[in-house]
Amino acid sequence: MPETMVAKHAQWPRVADPIFNISEKAQAAIKSLGKENVINATIGALTDDDGNIITLNTVFDEYKSLPNSEIAAYASIAGQKDYLEAVKKACFKDSMPDAHIRAVATPGGSGAIKLAVWNYTNEGDEILTSDWFWSPYVSISEEVGRKVTTYQLFNEYNNFNFNSFRERFLNIASKQERIFTILNTPAHNPTGYSVPDNDWDKILNLSKEVAQNPEKKIILFVDVAYIDFVKDDDGCRKFFEKFTNLPENILVIVGFSMSKGFTAYGMRMGAAICISSSEDVAEQFYYSCVHSCRANWSNCNRGPMKVLTNIINNPEKYKEYMDEKKIYKEMLSKRAEVFVEEAKKCELDILPYIDGFFISIPCEDPKAVSEELTKDNVFVVPLKRGLRFAVCAVSEEKCAIAPSIIKNALERVRGQMLARD
Amino acid sequence: MPETMVAKHAQWPRVADPIFNISEKAQAAIKSLGKENVINATIGALTDDDGNIITLNTVFDEYKSLPNSEIAAYASIAGQKDYLEAVKKACFKDSMPDAHIRAVATPGGSGAIKLAVWNYTNEGDEILTSDWFWSPYVSISEEVGRKVTTYQLFNEYNNFNFNSFRERFLNIASKQERIFTILNTPAHNPTGYSVPDNDWDKILNLSKEVAQNPEKKIILFVDVAYIDFVKDDDGCRKFFEKFTNLPENILVIVGFSMSKGFTAYGMRMGAAICISSSEDVAEQFYYSCVHSCRANWSNCNRGPMKVLTNIINNPEKYKEYMDEKKIYKEMLSKRAEVFVEEAKKCELDILPYIDGFFISIPCEDPKAVSEELTKDNVFVVPLKRGLRFAVCAVSEEKCAIAPSIIKNALERVRGQMLARD
Repeated sequence: MPETMVAKHAQWPRVADPIFNISEKAQAAIKSLGKENVINATIGALTDDDGNIITLNTVFDEYKSLPNSEIAAYASIAGQKDYLEAVKKACFKDSMPDAHIRAVATPGGSGAIKLAVWNYTNEGDEILTSDWFWSPYVSISEEVGRKVTTYQLFNEYNNFNFNSFRERFLNIASKQERIFTILNTPAHNPTGYSVPDNDWDKILNLSKEVAQNPEKKIILFVDVAYIDFVKDDDGCRKFFEKFTNLPENILVIVGFSMSKGFTAYGMRMGAAICISSSEDVAEQFYYSCVHSCRANWSNCNRGPMKVLTNIINNPEKYKEYMDEKKIYKEMLSKRAEVFVEEAKKCELDILPYIDGFFISIPCEDPKAVSEELTKDNVFVVPLKRGLRFAVCAVSEEKCAIAPSIIKNALERVRGQMLARD
Repeated sequence: MPETMVAKHAQWPRVADPIFNISEKAQAAIKSLGKENVINATIGALTDDDGNIITLNTVFDEYKSLPNSEIAAYASIAGQKDYLEAVKKACFKDSMPDAHIRAVATPGGSGAIKLAVWNYTNEGDEILTSDWFWSPYVSISEEVGRKVTTYQLFNEYNNFNFNSFRERFLNIASKQERIFTILNTPAHNPTGYSVPDNDWDKILNLSKEVAQNPEKKIILFVDVAYIDFVKDDDGCRKFFEKFTNLPENILVIVGFSMSKGFTAYGMRMGAAICISSSEDVAEQFYYSCVHSCRANWSNCNRGPMKVLTNIINNPEKYKEYMDEKKIYKEMLSKRAEVFVEEAKKCELDILPYIDGFFISIPCEDPKAVSEELTKDNVFVVPLKRGLRFAVCAVSEEKCAIAPSIIKNALERVRGQMLARD
């Protein structure tokens, strides 16, 4: 009886978050050995070379100068009107699709995924994403009885594996009314990959093909959580323009987050933004999401909405903000560049990195390798198919030495495996 | 086709929030007539006599002096450990039940209701609350396919209608495995009523009776959103002690919110706190809720967690905070007292008010009366069974004149109805 006070659908294994576990170990090592002797590549936030989280002054000065009432008062359920306009500008910049666009405020990008998954799929539905993926996609889906299924992100040439995408997409289309796909691009977590524009064309052409059957409902969820730390701000947004003039049964939902771009991780602010050629579909999105907001978290954190609005709508503040962010974007690029270079030198196999916070190293038995690496005081997150190294949280100096340490650990584990066989 | 891009379960009427509508009208009236000529009793937040939201300096000085990193970094999925301890103290003060208690951070009290409803009921289940209730209980329940059913809160003597509660409770127990009840007390929204301790005894005795059937699972959700604005801080918490030593198949979940007590409405911080005699049930609560957190909003707003923690754990800060809040508690009491007195004088029938932000006036056709009142530049929220008057947002002076204005409007509408018949 005690085991079942909670409803059946709400019973989950009592496990601690694996990222949290490894991150605790890293912190313990730093405490006993000193931070100069530890590489903590587990953190999902941009830090300085000493591992302290970076906060943008342009964001926090604006925030702390808000009148208390602007932080204390309830926001509208859907989000403040001026925020909902400003966040579209922040998201699309010069590449706003010519379509009916509606935004709803959400707690970070996670809240946007939640709204989309809940409102646009049915129980039992399969949701498609790549085999390298951010694991909370599974938590969000399984919480409400949906399943995540995957295509291979890369082909043998380390290019976007459109054939695999196509095969899985059509497979779902053959058995479901709804084909819901999550694309985490640009600057994919965990690989740092971005879907190239010509592959976007293929994805959209395939979607249009399937959309010829009016019974099919195609939802492309684009998770752009890392877009504001991509080197080429404008270039990486060009693909948004392709969402102009899609058939009415293709709906694009963009998940925007202030977490990274405004170093506001803990403030929980983002938006779900829909793009449709039909005003009715867009309106329906809005009202469904507003109901869900009310029924899940009521309304969102008001202060950060005002901060984004004030910065986006004031050219001077915006320039200062972009200038400050640029410094850190360059720091991040440099770290990643050094890691990629050194990986090449020591022949450490890594996945194609373009932009973003993480680099992935494919390997067998990632848990064993991650464990082995702790002996070298290097802490990385083990994923299903490899390791995630957070260049966002590791100094350039350490990014230069990490690849060969990882390469060695990989070889030791491989040796142990061979010895066991 | 366009109508059904959204899944069937996510299609809701495209209506704007009724509270929002009336509140917009009030703001328009203030703009054209001046605030001295308008009574805006629609707001759900404590305001000064001019209608400006009150923010506690002890809260916001603490908040704005936090280092940026303490606001910017992600919190743990369940909430920061020190917050989860501090929030128990904030909630129970000297009346902590002797039981296994676990807390999980949530976006306001709404998030706590969401977690409890989702994890502790099944699709199609009826959820029990009183006939005077906060309408989002319905949104939260219907979003996930649950239905709200009600008992009569008051009997003919305007006391807690235990007979009605008992009848509905047993009716649900006769057809469902799970009996999930929401009790919004003390300082109930919308009436300002608090369930007396001896009625709590009756509720718990009834629960224990039903719990003798080990197949039955009884969940008492106690929404204490307004507890920190009750006149008698300690007295109003005594009922918590009754949750010691309950059978394992009675689980109490308390929904705590920082919104009112810390004037932090827009910051979205609260907690779901479970109380069980079984450690296993408590652990299960924790892990189910953590999964739901991850799957709905990921983690909560970190800054306000630290504020509550710092204030609760520092006796000096705590005293300053309580002293500051006391001023506003007294202001609120005085307003309500005057309203109740004047209602009595002009024979306006109101529901029994004890504490809290709102007073309710039962009437026929509340929409018509609310509409009629706008002619007097008085704005109140129409509920299903009457009007909600926000003493939290109306000056003492206006609280003194409102009852007779409402009385007159009621009589005009009654006259119109009779004329129509």
